[in-house]
Amino acid sequence: MKILLTGLILIVGTFATAQDVLPSWNNGKNRTNVIEYVEVVTNKKSGDFIPKKDRIAVFDNDGTLWSEQPIYFQLFFAMDRVKALAPKHPEWKTIEPFKSVLSNDMKSLIKSGKKGLLTLLMATHAGMSDEEFDAVVVEWIKTAKHPTKKVHYSKLVFQPMLELLEYLRSNGFKTFIVSGGGIDFMRPWASEVYGIPSNQIIGSQIEVKYEDKKIVRVPKIKFIDDNEGKPVGIHYHIGKRPVAAFGNSDGDFDMMLYTEANKKYKTLELYVHHTDGKREWAYDRKSHIGKLDKGLNYAEEHNWSVIDMKKDWKVIYPL
Amino acid sequence: MKILLTGLILIVGTFATAQDVLPSWNNGKNRTNVIEYVEVVTNKKSGDFIPKKDRIAVFDNDGTLWSEQPIYFQLFFAMDRVKALAPKHPEWKTIEPFKSVLSNDMKSLIKSGKKGLLTLLMATHAGMSDEEFDAVVVEWIKTAKHPTKKVHYSKLVFQPMLELLEYLRSNGFKTFIVSGGGIDFMRPWASEVYGIPSNQIIGSQIEVKYEDKKIVRVPKIKFIDDNEGKPVGIHYHIGKRPVAAFGNSDGDFDMMLYTEANKKYKTLELYVHHTDGKREWAYDRKSHIGKLDKGLNYAEEHNWSVIDMKKDWKVIYPL
Repeated sequence: MKILLTGLILIVGTFATAQDVLPSWNNGKNRTNVIEYVEVVTNKKSGDFIPKKDRIAVFDNDGTLWSEQPIYFQLFFAMDRVKALAPKHPEWKTIEPFKSVLSNDMKSLIKSGKKGLLTLLMATHAGMSDEEFDAVVVEWIKTAKHPTKKVHYSKLVFQPMLELLEYLRSNGFKTFIVSGGGIDFMRPWASEVYGIPSNQIIGSQIEVKYEDKKIVRVPKIKFIDDNEGKPVGIHYHIGKRPVAAFGNSDGDFDMMLYTEANKKYKTLELYVHHTDGKREWAYDRKSHIGKLDKGLNYAEEHNWSVIDMKKDWKVIYPL
Repeated sequence: MKILLTGLILIVGTFATAQDVLPSWNNGKNRTNVIEYVEVVTNKKSGDFIPKKDRIAVFDNDGTLWSEQPIYFQLFFAMDRVKALAPKHPEWKTIEPFKSVLSNDMKSLIKSGKKGLLTLLMATHAGMSDEEFDAVVVEWIKTAKHPTKKVHYSKLVFQPMLELLEYLRSNGFKTFIVSGGGIDFMRPWASEVYGIPSNQIIGSQIEVKYEDKKIVRVPKIKFIDDNEGKPVGIHYHIGKRPVAAFGNSDGDFDMMLYTEANKKYKTLELYVHHTDGKREWAYDRKSHIGKLDKGLNYAEEHNWSVIDMKKDWKVIYPL
């Protein structure tokens, strides 16, 4: 009787869990795939069991955990910084790319290309200590609003992904961000918003130097954590191959292939496909931001999970 | 009565804890300093309370968590690798620094200087995938023995420091290694020996590249995590200033100054001073390995804890 009762409780327990987890995800193949993966790799009796220390899950940020349209939010931050710093730089009125930013001329800004964007980033992200930069980012994330959604940027995170992060952590996974965005731009707010400690946030880096007991930011790119940079960033920061990878663009493809090639453990790869032009944005193969093309082909051919935001998610943003 | 009883329990509780923790440390100023620090910064009612997310403790490895004499153990690893690989490299018999290694001529090896040591490291630490290198390190740490102590290197960790790591973690601290040693040399064994996950182990790096779904090790130094490199490594990997720092040499001095300069929280700095020529080794101001000179002056002037290994520690190594 005791055994029977324990059995019943276990069954009820599992059933209740499967019902309760990922509440913002519609039932369907993708939600089931995720839950079945987590259940099998955390089950000690299963041949696919993964010990806790190796339950490493990596998440891209832009387009995977929060929106990234019409441009990466870090670029809005850089533009807002240019406007805030402009009184101290009268010369910016006449030189690009600052001129375009100050006159809200997005087309010319985009025309300034990679070199223009880099100039913008260096002028706004360097020349101060890390702690000063932290404070600037914190103030911006608290006050700035998205130009069309008219809400704070931190409200544009994906509720279903917040639930996924929490679900994985409650099953012993360690969650990491592995983003092409700036590591020091994310850390001041992403810890709180995603529940991920700063040392588990990996991203692109500018040079820093140690000077006068402080870390000082130097206007020079040190590391781009995108494409083949993502497995490299994972190597330096995590030191082991992940078992689960979540992305939304071709920039995440190498990280996901690197994860899939884990010879030791069963893995999970999932793409967030932006299909909801009404609630969010719809874009993929031809987008300048978050292009998803070769990754989408591979995912379809290899049975990776591809979230259809419109069909799979009950809500996009937290209420 | 209820209040009185609660008070009694609290007093008894604290008393029991203070007796039980750090059992291999002799009672005295240094043990008391550590315990008083931990108790005050974890007490919510104290003005020095530190929230869990900011309880970051950083530890040097060589000479702080394990021995480092007569040379850094990673150099013994490199020498053992040269001997193992020698049959495939007949030319090594005649060229330095390999010749010295193969003939056990330590004096000539040391004479080959930085360039020689670098050549040795590159020849033995690169040219394979990270997972292949892991396996080589794991095999070495399981089998190789220290030339004079005649035990496995992993037995030459300091028992009192293992207790300190565990004590800090049980009080909500996150413990990190920040070592001048190679990050990929430490990770395969240090997680298990110190209870520190691989993503909390920071060290010097060689270049890697992503190729054919693997991380391949390239014979080129990328980052030296020593002296002013330690705060830089902390910045990239942890993203916040520590509150507690533990070292044994001038190479740790910048990391400890950086920690002490934390404006937000009360901090703890502790040097392990190698004073026990009988049970371990005795060296400081004039040593080629683990030189402790300017750091020792500063520590004495600024009331940092300086462990006298001979007096403060009941045992050095685990039994």
